[in-house]
Amino acid sequence: MKIDDIILQVKPQLTVERFEHTLRVRDTAAELAERYGEDKEKIELAAVCHDYAKYRPLDEMKRWIIQSTLPKDLLHYHHELWHGPVGAILTERELGIKDPGIQSAIHYHTTGRANMSKMEMIIFLADYIEPGRQFPGVQEVRDAAEEDLLKACWLTSRNTVRYLMKKNTLVYPDSFHAYNDLTRKINGGH
Amino acid sequence: MKIDDIILQVKPQLTVERFEHTLRVRDTAAELAERYGEDKEKIELAAVCHDYAKYRPLDEMKRWIIQSTLPKDLLHYHHELWHGPVGAILTERELGIKDPGIQSAIHYHTTGRANMSKMEMIIFLADYIEPGRQFPGVQEVRDAAEEDLLKACWLTSRNTVRYLMKKNTLVYPDSFHAYNDLTRKINGGH
Repeated sequence: MKIDDIILQVKPQLTVERFEHTLRVRDTAAELAERYGEDKEKIELAAVCHDYAKYRPLDEMKRWIIQSTLPKDLLHYHHELWHGPVGAILTERELGIKDPGIQSAIHYHTTGRANMSKMEMIIFLADYIEPGRQFPGVQEVRDAAEEDLLKACWLTSRNTVRYLMKKNTLVYPDSFHAYNDLTRKINGGH
Repeated sequence: MKIDDIILQVKPQLTVERFEHTLRVRDTAAELAERYGEDKEKIELAAVCHDYAKYRPLDEMKRWIIQSTLPKDLLHYHHELWHGPVGAILTERELGIKDPGIQSAIHYHTTGRANMSKMEMIIFLADYIEPGRQFPGVQEVRDAAEEDLLKACWLTSRNTVRYLMKKNTLVYPDSFHAYNDLTRKINGGH
């Protein structure tokens, strides 16, 4: 499957800004793939598709969660969390992408999870640090991404959970498990 | 069972400072019990015993965790988290306290958990706001405790998790579940 064909199918699903963000995630993820020795073609495919379901109607996403094997507890958390898991399903059904590694990277790109694969980490991180992102602390994560994939993902995870708690919102369990898992790996278990 | 007898048995288990803290937790918890309509006698018993296992040797606490029905994942988190759960067991075995509500308040006083009982909330909160505690944000929690038990517990839980993450340490799942559960109850589900 050619990535250019996929891009043509992804584009009409997104707003102009979101599509541009998607291309920046692709470029950032490709750099990370090269730096950390991951399959660049697969990474680019995952990056291009990571927000595929972003603008699906909430009703449709809800239906996919109910009708699929996706965890039902998603329905009790903010709908912003739905497009990753639903995107993993729709990119298989609608775009014919059937690579569990890619699907999983799309699924977990917002929350992360415990025991992320390298591909999952790269998409999770690229989505956070692509050059269009501007918020306090992002430069520290970009710097870490130059030399330590785990540490950069840990910072991403920690910043994300702390940001959610600062806003007094719920934190999906996978976000929290990602934080604990990466903290263990960075700190050696404390 | 008379609380004065229990106090006499708790005192030699603690340092002087920790014993004074314990008495302040008792007084704070008694006030909260009165304010929020909870059994004052039970609350005082739970408060007096909450740190009972605090200075047990780590090896002994570890053994209790392994030999009892306590969750084994405690062993993968900081030993500071062990004295609550182990205290719940030891106060039954050594002090003869056999009230599941009291035991549970001792068990969860450090982390909280989802669906806390009123007694659990009062001990969790009293331990955090007793007058000897001095740290940024404590006054806001004391103020909240004057009129809204749930909100005060939510602040306690949120502050605790954020503090742990600021120190880059692991967060025990119950702490996180307490935060999400209380956030739902405060915010109405977001």
